Amino acid sequence: MSEAILSPTSSTDALAHPLRARALPIETDGEAMIFMHEDCPVARSEGFRARVRVELVAKGRRLLATLYRATDDLLADDEVGLPHRLMARLSLAEGDELQVRHPHPLSSLSHVRAKLYGHRLDEIRLGHIIADIADGRYSDVDIAAFVSAFAAQPAQGEETAALTRAMLAAGDRLEWNADRVMDKHCVGGLPGNRTTPIVVSIIAAAGLTMPKTSSRAITSPAGTADAMETMAPVTLDLAAMQKVVEREGGCIVWGGSVNLSPADDVLIRIERALDVDSDAQLVASVLSKKLAAGSTHVLLDLPVGPTAKIRSTRDADALAGLLENVARQCGLHVATVQTDGTQPVGRGIGPALEAHDVLAVLANRDDAPQDLKARALALAAGILELSGAPRSDALHRATQLLVEGRAESKFLAICEAQGGFKEPGRALQTREFLAARAGRVATFDNRLLARTAKLAGAPQRATAGIALHVKSGDLVEQGQPLFTIHGESMGELDYAFAFALRNSDMIRLEAQ
Amino acid sequence: MSEAILSPTSSTDALAHPLRARALPIETDGEAMIFMHEDCPVARSEGFRARVRVELVAKGRRLLATLYRATDDLLADDEVGLPHRLMARLSLAEGDELQVRHPHPLSSLSHVRAKLYGHRLDEIRLGHIIADIADGRYSDVDIAAFVSAFAAQPAQGEETAALTRAMLAAGDRLEWNADRVMDKHCVGGLPGNRTTPIVVSIIAAAGLTMPKTSSRAITSPAGTADAMETMAPVTLDLAAMQKVVEREGGCIVWGGSVNLSPADDVLIRIERALDVDSDAQLVASVLSKKLAAGSTHVLLDLPVGPTAKIRSTRDADALAGLLENVARQCGLHVATVQTDGTQPVGRGIGPALEAHDVLAVLANRDDAPQDLKARALALAAGILELSGAPRSDALHRATQLLVEGRAESKFLAICEAQGGFKEPGRALQTREFLAARAGRVATFDNRLLARTAKLAGAPQRATAGIALHVKSGDLVEQGQPLFTIHGESMGELDYAFAFALRNSDMIRLEAQ
Repeated sequence: MSEAILSPTSSTDALAHPLRARALPIETDGEAMIFMHEDCPVARSEGFRARVRVELVAKGRRLLATLYRATDDLLADDEVGLPHRLMARLSLAEGDELQVRHPHPLSSLSHVRAKLYGHRLDEIRLGHIIADIADGRYSDVDIAAFVSAFAAQPAQGEETAALTRAMLAAGDRLEWNADRVMDKHCVGGLPGNRTTPIVVSIIAAAGLTMPKTSSRAITSPAGTADAMETMAPVTLDLAAMQKVVEREGGCIVWGGSVNLSPADDVLIRIERALDVDSDAQLVASVLSKKLAAGSTHVLLDLPVGPTAKIRSTRDADALAGLLENVARQCGLHVATVQTDGTQPVGRGIGPALEAHDVLAVLANRDDAPQDLKARALALAAGILELSGAPRSDALHRATQLLVEGRAESKFLAICEAQGGFKEPGRALQTREFLAARAGRVATFDNRLLARTAKLAGAPQRATAGIALHVKSGDLVEQGQPLFTIHGESMGELDYAFAFALRNSDMIRLEAQ
Repeated sequence: MSEAILSPTSSTDALAHPLRARALPIETDGEAMIFMHEDCPVARSEGFRARVRVELVAKGRRLLATLYRATDDLLADDEVGLPHRLMARLSLAEGDELQVRHPHPLSSLSHVRAKLYGHRLDEIRLGHIIADIADGRYSDVDIAAFVSAFAAQPAQGEETAALTRAMLAAGDRLEWNADRVMDKHCVGGLPGNRTTPIVVSIIAAAGLTMPKTSSRAITSPAGTADAMETMAPVTLDLAAMQKVVEREGGCIVWGGSVNLSPADDVLIRIERALDVDSDAQLVASVLSKKLAAGSTHVLLDLPVGPTAKIRSTRDADALAGLLENVARQCGLHVATVQTDGTQPVGRGIGPALEAHDVLAVLANRDDAPQDLKARALALAAGILELSGAPRSDALHRATQLLVEGRAESKFLAICEAQGGFKEPGRALQTREFLAARAGRVATFDNRLLARTAKLAGAPQRATAGIALHVKSGDLVEQGQPLFTIHGESMGELDYAFAFALRNSDMIRLEAQ
């Protein structure tokens, strides 16, 4: 610390000598990482150390990357090694010319520092930050500071609305040929809570428009897109999606093929790594995605429970207040409902197991999970009410659409329009997990149950996961199965079973 | 965001299948980065995506690393690729067995989150964080959150003292055979401010003990170790350093060969990348290093100026107060002095050019830079006073030791003890930068001057840098040289000259 911390000043404008691109057989999950030989004359004359940020210029495009050094014969000394996907992203072929130089300082980082020191940011400054993040100009370290700043200096309604608009502006925005575009979102999912396919089917059967874009699992055992994919194709481009919605009024597709609020995914990755987020960033994330998807009316489901994302009704009230405040400022009609988040929903946890639950509810089968059915009906009623239906009538109408089979017909029609319905599969291997003693089921640890399903192979193996046989309050005998683990290989099954044995308290039994 | 953000839960304790180590010819500046083939069965069964944190187990040692994927033939599917330096750090040879598994969650990260949300941390919690950082268990993202937390939630004296003790505890601590071990430190250096060799020589000549460990430049054109190295060897191990100090009472060596406050370098790298720091982390950084070096009495020099690290006397007062408060709590005697930080010190900026200034002062040459001499004498007097000498006598005594040549003799004796004195070199190429018009020298931009010296090749090329010919207040004619750029190649000289031309306001002239 015996020298000044000098911030980087503007680089020389003259470009450095040209180098040649060379694809490297590595996969970095989107991280811009490049390699130059330790004897590269440009690296030497520019004084590049390993692990510095540099600017790459190729074919008139500029990109910030982290530089590492190659030794020996990995590269020639006039080559720049790039992960093959980064080559593709820059439309570069082997041997194409490119240049590497000191980056200009990112002026928006001064706004991140200002936020960290407690200043409020306006929409213009937030716009600069979000545009730089969406364009890949922030390093992970920069993003961590931005995420930390919002955690340490909570934003109120106005600043959160500015952040929401900034995130919306950084991506595409869909438009639909309808006055009212209905949507729903569950904030902080619960294992097995796969209401979306049922709700969309009811709402579309009611004649409303509900073009649903869903995510795949990132850390959970299944996302809506994963479960839906066991019954129909979900990777549709915008034109195909529009055709489905025009014909059926609704769709249930994967949102990843459209560029909605692109900074969001970048922020979420760092929030997960740090296990840090803020109400402001959560609200901006949810609402910017909904605005970008062209939704006008959104029902927000907030499950509350000790092992859910939202742990208390007090937290839920605060979050609901901020969601409603910001939605109003952004011209979005929303309603929030707080739901039970103390235990998983339905029986299945894992893509295909959840799909079987969904189909059982849509078919009005006697053995359909009643909690999933009740939640889906309540949410559908909430959306009908949000669309202007009288409250006294909404639940009745949603129930009718389901029990008369019109929701099921609509679901099958949507699947056909998306490319064709198929029955979800069944796992090759199963193993029951038995109660070690008798008692009453007291509590569920949602996180450990989700982890068990993932160890069994979900969501990569669509049929893997767990099927629960008990609910909170049930009386069980010693030796009675609490859940069944489903897997595609005995190895994965054993792995999940061993984990469950070591964490058998994830379903806690109270002595009678 | 339609799923819960699940924090990673404990991994299975059973180790995964053994893999084989393979050295990769890459250099990552200490970042633990490993590669596994996309078809590696362990990566598949564990569900490792690219860019996840994993735990590496080899020869009974564990290490956290970031995993990337290799495609094609970079690696076999049972191999783990490691940068060759990481192989060496783990004492691994080609083909040695190792294992890769999900990491256990770092419990100390919950303390980082608590700090971010405004809770104060005690010494035990800070100790866990700092030990994990020193052991390389924090990713850059984690460290960025820790740095951001202290910037957003300023720590007061008690918490800062706890941080200082935690940083001290994570490394080695030197011991000296003396009651009083004198030291000095300049907080946020100024280009050319190379007082240390002069001050150590005066203090050792006065019969006191001053074993000085100095840093090399990281972002500046020269560190004390770089300048000293142009006159004598500075890379001494602890035993050699102790011999020098026993014989001469002082030394001026590079601190990098002893493990003092190892978390500090890790934190500084991220603070620089973000251009974010906090008084608390600065104080803990400085004082933990001094305590670790075995110092008991430390004079702290705080240069204040608009382009210095400390920009106002108000900031300097606050920092001085915290430094004195924390030093007291840690049993360290300190005094702080605020000095002029508005312009560079001496003439030279760059290792050898600064060394020439130092030798001119020590030799009492008429052309020696008087500002460097005055600063060195004032600091030496401050240290004498801190050791118990009466204030009225201290400056006189320091001046006598210098003008009688005893400081010069001591300096040469220290150089001999460290391995032998040599004259610093002179650059092969020089080029004068001339005043574009007449006027009075008004202000200097320390940062841009430092950047010019670096572009000329400092500190890698020891003789490179700039030699200033004017000081604030001087009257200059049009065409009169303001400074001379020194370099080893015409290319670097031209590069630095072009930068200076574009930023000619770095020495601002006022019309008369």
